[in-house]
Amino acid sequence: MKQWNLLSENRRKRIERGLAITGRIADPDKIVALLEALIEPGDRVCLEGNNQKQADFLAGALCSLDPAHVHDLHMLLSVLALPEHLDIFDKGIASKLDFSFSGPQAVRLARLVADGKLNIGAIHTYLELFGRYFIDLTPRVALIAAQAADRHGNLYTGPNTEDTPAIVEATAFKSGIVIAQVNEIVDVLPRVDIPADWVDFVVQAPTPHYIEPLFTRDPALISEVQVLMAMMAIKGIYAEYGVERINHGIGFDTAAIELILPTYAESLGLKGKIGRHWALNPHPALIPAIEAGFVESVHSFGSELGMERYIEARPDIFFVGRDGSMRSNRAMSQTAGLYACDMFIGSTLQIDLQGNSSTATLGRISGFGGAPNMGSDARGRRHASPAWLKAGEQARQGRDVMPRGQKLVVQIVETFREHMQPAFVEKLDAWQLAEQAKLAIPPVMIYGDDVTHILTEEGIANLLLCRTPEEREQAIRGVAGYTPVGMARDKKMVENLRDRGIILRAEDLGIDKRMATRDLLAAKNMKDLVRASGGLYAPPKRFRNW
Amino acid sequence: MKQWNLLSENRRKRIERGLAITGRIADPDKIVALLEALIEPGDRVCLEGNNQKQADFLAGALCSLDPAHVHDLHMLLSVLALPEHLDIFDKGIASKLDFSFSGPQAVRLARLVADGKLNIGAIHTYLELFGRYFIDLTPRVALIAAQAADRHGNLYTGPNTEDTPAIVEATAFKSGIVIAQVNEIVDVLPRVDIPADWVDFVVQAPTPHYIEPLFTRDPALISEVQVLMAMMAIKGIYAEYGVERINHGIGFDTAAIELILPTYAESLGLKGKIGRHWALNPHPALIPAIEAGFVESVHSFGSELGMERYIEARPDIFFVGRDGSMRSNRAMSQTAGLYACDMFIGSTLQIDLQGNSSTATLGRISGFGGAPNMGSDARGRRHASPAWLKAGEQARQGRDVMPRGQKLVVQIVETFREHMQPAFVEKLDAWQLAEQAKLAIPPVMIYGDDVTHILTEEGIANLLLCRTPEEREQAIRGVAGYTPVGMARDKKMVENLRDRGIILRAEDLGIDKRMATRDLLAAKNMKDLVRASGGLYAPPKRFRNW
Repeated sequence: MKQWNLLSENRRKRIERGLAITGRIADPDKIVALLEALIEPGDRVCLEGNNQKQADFLAGALCSLDPAHVHDLHMLLSVLALPEHLDIFDKGIASKLDFSFSGPQAVRLARLVADGKLNIGAIHTYLELFGRYFIDLTPRVALIAAQAADRHGNLYTGPNTEDTPAIVEATAFKSGIVIAQVNEIVDVLPRVDIPADWVDFVVQAPTPHYIEPLFTRDPALISEVQVLMAMMAIKGIYAEYGVERINHGIGFDTAAIELILPTYAESLGLKGKIGRHWALNPHPALIPAIEAGFVESVHSFGSELGMERYIEARPDIFFVGRDGSMRSNRAMSQTAGLYACDMFIGSTLQIDLQGNSSTATLGRISGFGGAPNMGSDARGRRHASPAWLKAGEQARQGRDVMPRGQKLVVQIVETFREHMQPAFVEKLDAWQLAEQAKLAIPPVMIYGDDVTHILTEEGIANLLLCRTPEEREQAIRGVAGYTPVGMARDKKMVENLRDRGIILRAEDLGIDKRMATRDLLAAKNMKDLVRASGGLYAPPKRFRNW
Repeated sequence: MKQWNLLSENRRKRIERGLAITGRIADPDKIVALLEALIEPGDRVCLEGNNQKQADFLAGALCSLDPAHVHDLHMLLSVLALPEHLDIFDKGIASKLDFSFSGPQAVRLARLVADGKLNIGAIHTYLELFGRYFIDLTPRVALIAAQAADRHGNLYTGPNTEDTPAIVEATAFKSGIVIAQVNEIVDVLPRVDIPADWVDFVVQAPTPHYIEPLFTRDPALISEVQVLMAMMAIKGIYAEYGVERINHGIGFDTAAIELILPTYAESLGLKGKIGRHWALNPHPALIPAIEAGFVESVHSFGSELGMERYIEARPDIFFVGRDGSMRSNRAMSQTAGLYACDMFIGSTLQIDLQGNSSTATLGRISGFGGAPNMGSDARGRRHASPAWLKAGEQARQGRDVMPRGQKLVVQIVETFREHMQPAFVEKLDAWQLAEQAKLAIPPVMIYGDDVTHILTEEGIANLLLCRTPEEREQAIRGVAGYTPVGMARDKKMVENLRDRGIILRAEDLGIDKRMATRDLLAAKNMKDLVRASGGLYAPPKRFRNW
């Protein structure tokens, strides 16, 4: 007779072992023993590491396990952010990793792979990883973080809900074990984000979980080149296509766009016509546009430190609970970014001659985060919008195919990045990285055939209008400036592309470059942002430079 | 001074009006008055109509509102299933509709559109509609259905969670109003699916909410042609690509595949190599494959009537709560189907010469459900699998492009459907429908450039290997049998495609057609399914034909 409840039986035994050590509201001093009782060798363990919120206390406890007892864990992490996330591998407790983003740990991750201490399953985009949690990567144990718990085990995440619902649902309903670290245990929660019967153990961490203010950009650091690029973006793309629903990546390029909405875009009469709805973390740089009435709604993947009071005071714009704090949700916001936005605009480190881009560079396995999901054409989308229809028409002009819309996917880069590294290359480093990390194919962030526009300080290349691989290559070279890729352009072909409106320079858009000064920024520094918020925005200390 | 809490202020007033009529646990006799107090003209109202679970009591109450007071509602529905869903428009209470699927109401919907009583915003795939709930179609009021509530307002959905979490989250956290009909009000819930503070009013309906057993197929109705097609699918596609993670559409074609896994696929030594993980409702036809050890896990969009006890007894396979009943979740399962499955296989009503398919036929606006989402290449996917890599390689052979995997999207159809209507057509009815319903572009269910294989009783056309539109057209004609499209094939070219392995006949796959009998079905009727389940499966009455 086949037994069909192995997972739940095994779960029962683990919980029993756990309860022999401490209560359901666990003693923080016994956390290591508790984890050792709950985790078995070879387990798939999801450790909540988000863009911002980190289950750091549980990560530290995991590192303290004895590798003689607990080893060969298969770690699932959205973001590798803390040193502990890799210490687990260094110490021989874990051996396999599936993840999405590893920005801060990209170099060390590459080293561990080279040393054979870490075997990468795959790099994912967030939503893809969540999807696999319900199919073939269901966590056996989830170590998560919340703001508070009540004595029943109900959890309150506050504004940093992020990945918690997706992780807990997949784990709890497949007989897995859920352990939550919380900042405080209270009698009555402001609201319930995760019901108690989805959670097995709660532990109050000695210090509040770490949160990274990842989406704050100081306007003081925005250059005039970035202002020029932002003007081209607004006039050449946002206005041209009438883009109402947008996702912006992190970065100064897009912060510049946000900051000239109330000045430049307003002067072009674009209020109410572009940028009405956003899938976006609460970027402080968006405050002036919100105050100016540009923005109707914002749904967020996660929150941003310092924005709490501002969000609470703007419930018409943000998604907030009855307690006044935001409810973010990475899974739903990524879904919204994929299916309900007309445009993704973000930056990258390298772009090749086909328009493929990657943030993976030599010696760094950095992952992609949400970009592949939001920076791809949602081919299942069926609802129309003017922007989507126009992009689809441009891509299909003169071809006898079924009409279809298309998402606008814009890569915005300066032709040279830090240390004068060219952003345009003949061949992506991703090819070499694939060999190093033994990946089946190169880790491309956004594929060229999903990119619709590349925007640099030299102009806009509209790849939708290119009809051959040669045209595409020359369109890219034509905005690649003084990089070797740009210098090797076929000048005649580039001029022809410009005549046909495939390459657009600032002057072709009627943009007076002399206007591209920092004066256009609705906030020029952090203090301006605070002022624009009516004093509601409270930047973290490191940004308080006045 | 701009006011930033208009939504929450307006919400407060509505709740106040509601509470003047009845309590938070509302009197069912006052439901019409309550809705009239809570709903305002022009509101976006999400009425929970799923594939299976229907908020039918609330739908009926909505129909009883006085259109002089409540009118011009903008209705959001996953599925138009009940007559009431359209009565709301007929009576002048609602005027605009955004939806996903309207199978049972497709003809009447087309008529209401023609009469100018209903204006379609757009037809969506489910996940797309959920995405828009967080961007530009956030519900003002949500009318949902659950199994039970406790006196605080916590909700228990039981196995039919379906769309509820996505709808409630979008509504509750944007100062909207959530009203739940429940079958019973109890002291202690078996588990909490929706926390109480996301819900405003609960009402016990006089009769339990309607549930449709939509995914039950009686094996007695499976034909030998379908068995042959199932054999070709397994040998020519599942085994060929090593497809481990699958989504099956509804239908007898895919039920036949499910039912020959433990016989035919087993005889080919495919156990553990194909069909291990599924994004799928609990199809009764899958029982024999589960019992035979083919299936490792199933995550579901919704449940299926009669499968409750079987699911409870197989927690290693299904996602179940601590109470023993399933937790389904359409948003997460669609995400899994999109990003974590290697193949979608489903049926359609019409396929054109480019491979575009649609279930919209003249006089019927039927919508698409989940097919566009799961039947499209997830271009944001970055993790590799053998099936995905092989499909991607075939599509890119001989072309100098960045390597990339691809999802297998298989259309399985007999060349003639009911009433001898050909499944292959020169031009989809969708073109005419687009005009009738004033849609910007024809309502295509799955676009030809996302389809990788078309499978009919005549054979398999592998569109991945086609290099020109002409080859593609002839590959389609080459499996279109005696339909006019099939008869007009270029015989020489079709033979050439067959020589190149682009068209595969049963004999090319080494399939002995004489074996294609109903004897291969692991269950030949409903009684066999019950027996295979060890008596745990309890089919609804209408299927009890023994």
